[in-house]
Amino acid sequence: MTELAHFLAHALALENQASQRYGELARHLDQAGNHDTAALFGKMAEFSRMHADEINAIAKPNAPLPVLLSWQYEWTTPEPPEVGDASLVGPATTVSQALGLAIANERRGWEYYNHTAITATDAETRRLARSFATEEAEHVLTLERWLSSLGPTSAPG
Amino acid sequence: MTELAHFLAHALALENQASQRYGELARHLDQAGNHDTAALFGKMAEFSRMHADEINAIAKPNAPLPVLLSWQYEWTTPEPPEVGDASLVGPATTVSQALGLAIANERRGWEYYNHTAITATDAETRRLARSFATEEAEHVLTLERWLSSLGPTSAPG
Repeated sequence: MTELAHFLAHALALENQASQRYGELARHLDQAGNHDTAALFGKMAEFSRMHADEINAIAKPNAPLPVLLSWQYEWTTPEPPEVGDASLVGPATTVSQALGLAIANERRGWEYYNHTAITATDAETRRLARSFATEEAEHVLTLERWLSSLGPTSAPG
Repeated sequence: MTELAHFLAHALALENQASQRYGELARHLDQAGNHDTAALFGKMAEFSRMHADEINAIAKPNAPLPVLLSWQYEWTTPEPPEVGDASLVGPATTVSQALGLAIANERRGWEYYNHTAITATDAETRRLARSFATEEAEHVLTLERWLSSLGPTSAPG
């Protein structure tokens, strides 16, 4: 596998798994009646799905990309870095807690892309990884602004 | 000292030290003839100085804020988290390397503000820390876009 195909397969796994997890959380919270937080996770699922579509379009010349199984990941974790810890989310999760969790996820995604943008030997892989890193930085800022707009959250427990 | 004054004194130290360090790097690189990278650090010095001015304005009711000495920092490092490692910068430092270093600095600044926004017991401290975190996320995105616009950098050494 070329370095570029290896990278795109990982990026696709990252975005697909993130989208799936965000979607599950959205459905779960909707059923629990926590519609505000559900809507937020639904939007995050949409972000990641759009990014996965973009990666599939970029990968057309290399298609089909291999679908990586978890033990084939270059990550040492069983899940890609943008997939958050679902055990932290429950029916009582507030919008601001969910935003904090989503920011942490997007930052881990940013870290992976940034690392690849710095270390890859193939120029096109570095270029794409940088552009994906910039997208993640955009998501972080969007979430940050949302969190700022909520005003001070309640005191930590 | 109130939690708010404690936070503002730390934020002021962070921004002042970052501005000073960025300014030193800018002058050093200008003398070495590396004007592009010097201009970048000059801009970062300006960002941090503007943020320090903003903190001084916010702190007016608490003025004068104590000027913290390094052993009084809550950080376990001798320098605030946004101050980068100057030993990584030399006359041959490229704009893209400098951007990478600045992004790492701004992200550490973001981490400090985010941590305070989550953990402070005082609501106004949480609110200000969140708004400072959002500013750092804006700087990260600005630098990211700049880095993306440079195209692929040369292969890692």
